Amino acid sequence: MKPRQRLRSYLDDPNQLIRVVGAHNALGAKLIERNGFHAVWASGFEISTAHAKPDANILSMTELLYSTQQMVEATTLPVIADCDTGFGNINNVIRMVKEYEKAGVAAVCIEDKVFPKMNSFIPGRQDLAPVEEFCGKISAAKDSQTDGDFMVIARIEALIAKQGMEEALYRAEKYREAGADMILIHSKQKEPYEIIEFCNKWNHDTPIVIVPTTYPDLTLTHIKELNIKAVIYANQALRASVKAVNQMLETLRTSEALSSISSHIAQMDELFDLQGMKEYIATEKEYEHRHRPKVIS
Amino acid sequence: MKPRQRLRSYLDDPNQLIRVVGAHNALGAKLIERNGFHAVWASGFEISTAHAKPDANILSMTELLYSTQQMVEATTLPVIADCDTGFGNINNVIRMVKEYEKAGVAAVCIEDKVFPKMNSFIPGRQDLAPVEEFCGKISAAKDSQTDGDFMVIARIEALIAKQGMEEALYRAEKYREAGADMILIHSKQKEPYEIIEFCNKWNHDTPIVIVPTTYPDLTLTHIKELNIKAVIYANQALRASVKAVNQMLETLRTSEALSSISSHIAQMDELFDLQGMKEYIATEKEYEHRHRPKVIS
Amino acid sequence: MKPRQRLRSYLDDPNQLIRVVGAHNALGAKLIERNGFHAVWASGFEISTAHAKPDANILSMTELLYSTQQMVEATTLPVIADCDTGFGNINNVIRMVKEYEKAGVAAVCIEDKVFPKMNSFIPGRQDLAPVEEFCGKISAAKDSQTDGDFMVIARIEALIAKQGMEEALYRAEKYREAGADMILIHSKQKEPYEIIEFCNKWNHDTPIVIVPTTYPDLTLTHIKELNIKAVIYANQALRASVKAVNQMLETLRTSEALSSISSHIAQMDELFDLQGMKEYIATEKEYEHRHRPKVIS
Amino acid sequence: MKPRQRLRSYLDDPNQLIRVVGAHNALGAKLIERNGFHAVWASGFEISTAHAKPDANILSMTELLYSTQQMVEATTLPVIADCDTGFGNINNVIRMVKEYEKAGVAAVCIEDKVFPKMNSFIPGRQDLAPVEEFCGKISAAKDSQTDGDFMVIARIEALIAKQGMEEALYRAEKYREAGADMILIHSKQKEPYEIIEFCNKWNHDTPIVIVPTTYPDLTLTHIKELNIKAVIYANQALRASVKAVNQMLETLRTSEALSSISSHIAQMDELFDLQGMKEYIATEKEYEHRHRPKVIS
Repeated sequence: MKPRQRLRSYLDDPNQLIRVVGAHNALGAKLIERNGFHAVWASGFEISTAHAKPDANILSMTELLYSTQQMVEATTLPVIADCDTGFGNINNVIRMVKEYEKAGVAAVCIEDKVFPKMNSFIPGRQDLAPVEEFCGKISAAKDSQTDGDFMVIARIEALIAKQGMEEALYRAEKYREAGADMILIHSKQKEPYEIIEFCNKWNHDTPIVIVPTTYPDLTLTHIKELNIKAVIYANQALRASVKAVNQMLETLRTSEALSSISSHIAQMDELFDLQGMKEYIATEKEYEHRHRPKVIS
Repeated sequence: MKPRQRLRSYLDDPNQLIRVVGAHNALGAKLIERNGFHAVWASGFEISTAHAKPDANILSMTELLYSTQQMVEATTLPVIADCDTGFGNINNVIRMVKEYEKAGVAAVCIEDKVFPKMNSFIPGRQDLAPVEEFCGKISAAKDSQTDGDFMVIARIEALIAKQGMEEALYRAEKYREAGADMILIHSKQKEPYEIIEFCNKWNHDTPIVIVPTTYPDLTLTHIKELNIKAVIYANQALRASVKAVNQMLETLRTSEALSSISSHIAQMDELFDLQGMKEYIATEKEYEHRHRPKVIS
Repeated sequence: MKPRQRLRSYLDDPNQLIRVVGAHNALGAKLIERNGFHAVWASGFEISTAHAKPDANILSMTELLYSTQQMVEATTLPVIADCDTGFGNINNVIRMVKEYEKAGVAAVCIEDKVFPKMNSFIPGRQDLAPVEEFCGKISAAKDSQTDGDFMVIARIEALIAKQGMEEALYRAEKYREAGADMILIHSKQKEPYEIIEFCNKWNHDTPIVIVPTTYPDLTLTHIKELNIKAVIYANQALRASVKAVNQMLETLRTSEALSSISSHIAQMDELFDLQGMKEYIATEKEYEHRHRPKVIS
Repeated sequence: MKPRQRLRSYLDDPNQLIRVVGAHNALGAKLIERNGFHAVWASGFEISTAHAKPDANILSMTELLYSTQQMVEATTLPVIADCDTGFGNINNVIRMVKEYEKAGVAAVCIEDKVFPKMNSFIPGRQDLAPVEEFCGKISAAKDSQTDGDFMVIARIEALIAKQGMEEALYRAEKYREAGADMILIHSKQKEPYEIIEFCNKWNHDTPIVIVPTTYPDLTLTHIKELNIKAVIYANQALRASVKAVNQMLETLRTSEALSSISSHIAQMDELFDLQGMKEYIATEKEYEHRHRPKVIS
């Protein structure tokens, strides 16, 4: 089953909660697959941080797409691409869908803010796009895909922008009508009350996705009870990496020898394995020898 | 002092051992700077691993350069670019020098193997380029730079290719004559005996660089005694990251809530700081308001 | 019918001579389609010239691929990608096939010289790769494709390298056995005698492709009689462009007004049409209005 | 004198009218230099057309920058980069200036419309940005440059947007105060009356640039009398190319032999010359031989 079909099949299975982990490069995608998760979130926040650039549309679509393509190549998991606001207007969204579909992603996620967006956790400007305009983007995205299994996730920033639950639900309803395959309802409260209220009031089939960055205590059991279909751990992998690299460098800085940090790092063999080095060498040997004249003794 | 001048000044200071750490993206470069190291190694091995591609010239120069540019932008440290064999012949080296110099790197390092290279730690083919050919690359590189502070490091793979100490020293001598600013002598022995012998027999001013991946017990004190000028911790940051991300994902996989891994990850604020988000917001405010008409009450 | 299938169907039709024109960007591909040709040759020579870089593997695969992708997007014609020697060894060829297939090209063409190659029309080094090695590349390429309609063309440089007709035929035979879908036999003689001899001696079904840059008098009638399947006009579009732009600039340089060259240039409307501007505007309007509330009078 | 200094020196010379020609790739830039013009306009319209994409911010900054970089590498002329609206807000403009300055362009030009822009010649939406906002972009751009010779051109779209002469002059005045090095006043009238009026009413030192695409009869003599400093022939080279390529393809389509179009195309040698092939070969020889042992007879 191809990655897109697999994501679709998860949606069709009422008992399946989809656990998605954020990545910023191919290596991350591979680690996520090896640890048994269901899908990869090609996170704009992670990719921006990896570039040491603000998560605010400073990177171009070309740059985000490049990182995303690498992830798709490296994993058999479905990759869900965080596409911010769609990089401009309707025609930018259409180009985006064509490019990301060709790159092999299973789904794109666009959010209902104005370009250039600001990361949702930053106080200050969080301007929402007019509902009709964002519905136009969703329709345009859906009409542009060529593979029926490709999906478009509509991310609602109404709670982030403090526009209230009614606005959030209204937008979710409109985006659903416009063709969204899933609704990502985003919240930055430290407790999941908004999310719980939203889920309880949502009476449509369109599945709900959450990103519990700020409310990490919400349990899987509770998530399932709320009829949430997918949970995205959007940035924890990069945060684990930053913590570990900082600690290692701090130790190394004052060490007499590199061996001081040996127990804190993966083996070279593990990294070669993640590179696919064994397959590389096997391939080289196979095709080098295939057309060599056989020596008869 | 610009990064290139700073690297040059370290060379001119007889008491300065240069400690360099490998990175694969802008974020890594920034962490290395924050932890007090002297320079960043834009590692081909790390960049390849991050792409989940073998360290064997599978990535193009364009792709390696892109990652390297991001590092240069993110740090005030000198960046030393690992350029494998120079991506082809003499003219490829010339293009490489122009591109990397324009990108702002302080130095490039090229190694005396044939294209496409194989990572030095992998058994099997490790074919050396003819000495004259590689000297041509060094000369071409040096003649192509426009900034006098830009440097070319010649990496000797003779010990890796089991060609013996005499060959290694002969090549070092020839590369020095051809204009190399530094000599990187590479070894994959588990003990540093080869390195010690090489350093003891090297009687020229051209400074020596080592990469103690396989002989991590060599102490800084010993390194200084051997008159080694720079030590590159080429891949430990990525290896720390892989270990930590794997552990975090493993824990998360079987957890009921995201909070299970909270103590293993950096805070969001730290990542926003690494993104430069505060400066972004300040800039936005400053220029938005600068030309607003002043209201007189 | 998709572009790849269309190219395949031309091969299956014994009466069809395929006329292919070289391009270096999306615009060129579109002009070739509008003028009724069958396929586009994403020419390494043209792309290199457009970059003002020698046609000698100075551009990376990434750069050639980028231009090629743009062509695929812009035309419904099959695009045949000139991939030089495959950018390195067997594993580089495998990556190449994956990338170009994903980009949507109908076929790739690789030539049996060593990396970095030199343009065939330049006197001097034209070193051939060992037959077994190149057969390995062809096998690896064929085994790597995922769409059965994707094709691999083997380009023989034996005549260019003055290795004689026997060598050329021997290589063609070996490449055919290794899986090549078509054989491109290249010649730089001013008369087509070599080509005629090769075709007369070729007694296999594998179709023959030619590039009559240096022997432009060979007629279509004669080409068909020789049982040649495809003819590539590899660089004439760019050469027409260079001549015209030079003439226009020369006139403009000494003119008092821009109107002096008005009759030598296409209308702006024609360029907007080639951009797809009309569709852009229509799309913008359609989706902007789709979700606007209907006003009832 | 470096390209940026040369452009600056033209500004300082009261008798110098700067004649600039639009290009979309390195080859175009080289032809413009060979024909004696003063500078190259890295045209968003041309680059978009070459990609067969609407001139409406469909291409990302990364893609426009790539083409522009190639132009800078290929010519010793100053390159003026058409940067549309600056690719977003103030922080996007700052990144843009850093990237384009690093790429070596002599000047960037930004226009006072909203992102995503629409080409000025297309009827319909041509929304202007608020004056204060655009002044913020100019200030931010000027503060971000590191080379004093780098310039920022402010392009006024008030006449395009039918906002009247007063608005155009008001904006020009404000942009001048904000730090613009030059003012590009754009018009799409078929006669230059608007331009003439603007120039007559402009009583500041800040030099004026025009783009006479729609009013090609305005003579150089008249342009000088109007105290206009620079004239940009923004798209004629590509239009000459499209016309010529179309004609050549039309002829070739119905020809029996490729020789039918021989007189309409440049020689291969001219293209190799534009590639820099001679220098490539000379370099290869020089460095190959430099380190060969001298044979003593």
